[in-house]
Amino acid sequence: MNQTEQIIYHPIGIIHSEHTEQENTPIQGIFNPSKGFIELFSDYVPGLETLEDFSHIILLYHFHQSSGSELIREPFLDGETKRGIFSIRHFNRPNSIGFSIVDLLGIHENIIKIGAVDILDGTPLLDIKPYVYRFDHREEVSDGWVEKNHLDDIADWNATPKGLRDRSRAKK
Amino acid sequence: MNQTEQIIYHPIGIIHSEHTEQENTPIQGIFNPSKGFIELFSDYVPGLETLEDFSHIILLYHFHQSSGSELIREPFLDGETKRGIFSIRHFNRPNSIGFSIVDLLGIHENIIKIGAVDILDGTPLLDIKPYVYRFDHREEVSDGWVEKNHLDDIADWNATPKGLRDRSRAKK
Repeated sequence: MNQTEQIIYHPIGIIHSEHTEQENTPIQGIFNPSKGFIELFSDYVPGLETLEDFSHIILLYHFHQSSGSELIREPFLDGETKRGIFSIRHFNRPNSIGFSIVDLLGIHENIIKIGAVDILDGTPLLDIKPYVYRFDHREEVSDGWVEKNHLDDIADWNATPKGLRDRSRAKK
Repeated sequence: MNQTEQIIYHPIGIIHSEHTEQENTPIQGIFNPSKGFIELFSDYVPGLETLEDFSHIILLYHFHQSSGSELIREPFLDGETKRGIFSIRHFNRPNSIGFSIVDLLGIHENIIKIGAVDILDGTPLLDIKPYVYRFDHREEVSDGWVEKNHLDDIADWNATPKGLRDRSRAKK
């Protein structure tokens, strides 16, 4: 396989959330209590069997409002420093695939209620995987450039009412 | 967007590992010390800036040896019970996207050395994201059907020399 080859996927559902504006969507779900739901296309409902006993799920989705691929850019809320795209979570990536760990709140037919949602309303869903503590948990992690100050900035920004957020800090 | 719509990605590199046979590839990298490397296509090298200070990275890749989409099937090493595809990590998924957290061991130009690798040699890479403890770590997790016995089975299987593994347990 080389970089001209096409890998083709199809949406399996749509993620719904209260986040309708890209610049006001919270950064990282773990810091905010926002709820939402997945509308899974009905063909895929049999694949949900035995998922409901997990407390957390991994969502892979398509950043449908990505405005193109960038290799170097500033992260959210850190407009000072440009960084390599693979060291940040920004959506303008070579392949615009998003990754979130969300709380699984309940499943009813093709509707999956989720919490701790940092995903834009209307986002096409590509995959759901169970979050398994022993597989996905790491200790002794070095977080590179993501220091405590930056995490505090994110928590503050998420906690600020939308109208009062300083948008100049939310670089796109 | 609906389920007939196409989402098109391109490989950004190739993952190399010592795992050349699908049925002998370890299950979940965290339980095994296997090393490998990513050969990133040279166009994407600028995107690696500031990645090297992270100890762990998230890889999203295409399961190129997936043999099609299944909605219900038995997980690896648990041939007794069929489960919904979204509650297991098997590669025969509606969209065959793989997810692994690996150790980042070093970067030299377009070569990224990685550890704790559970990925088949030659796998096309789609994305690299930094693993950030505060974003990606969850406490108080319920692991659904994945019980301690199953995790012990995986650890045993990974630790068994290839020739002695009971392949009948590794359901495909």
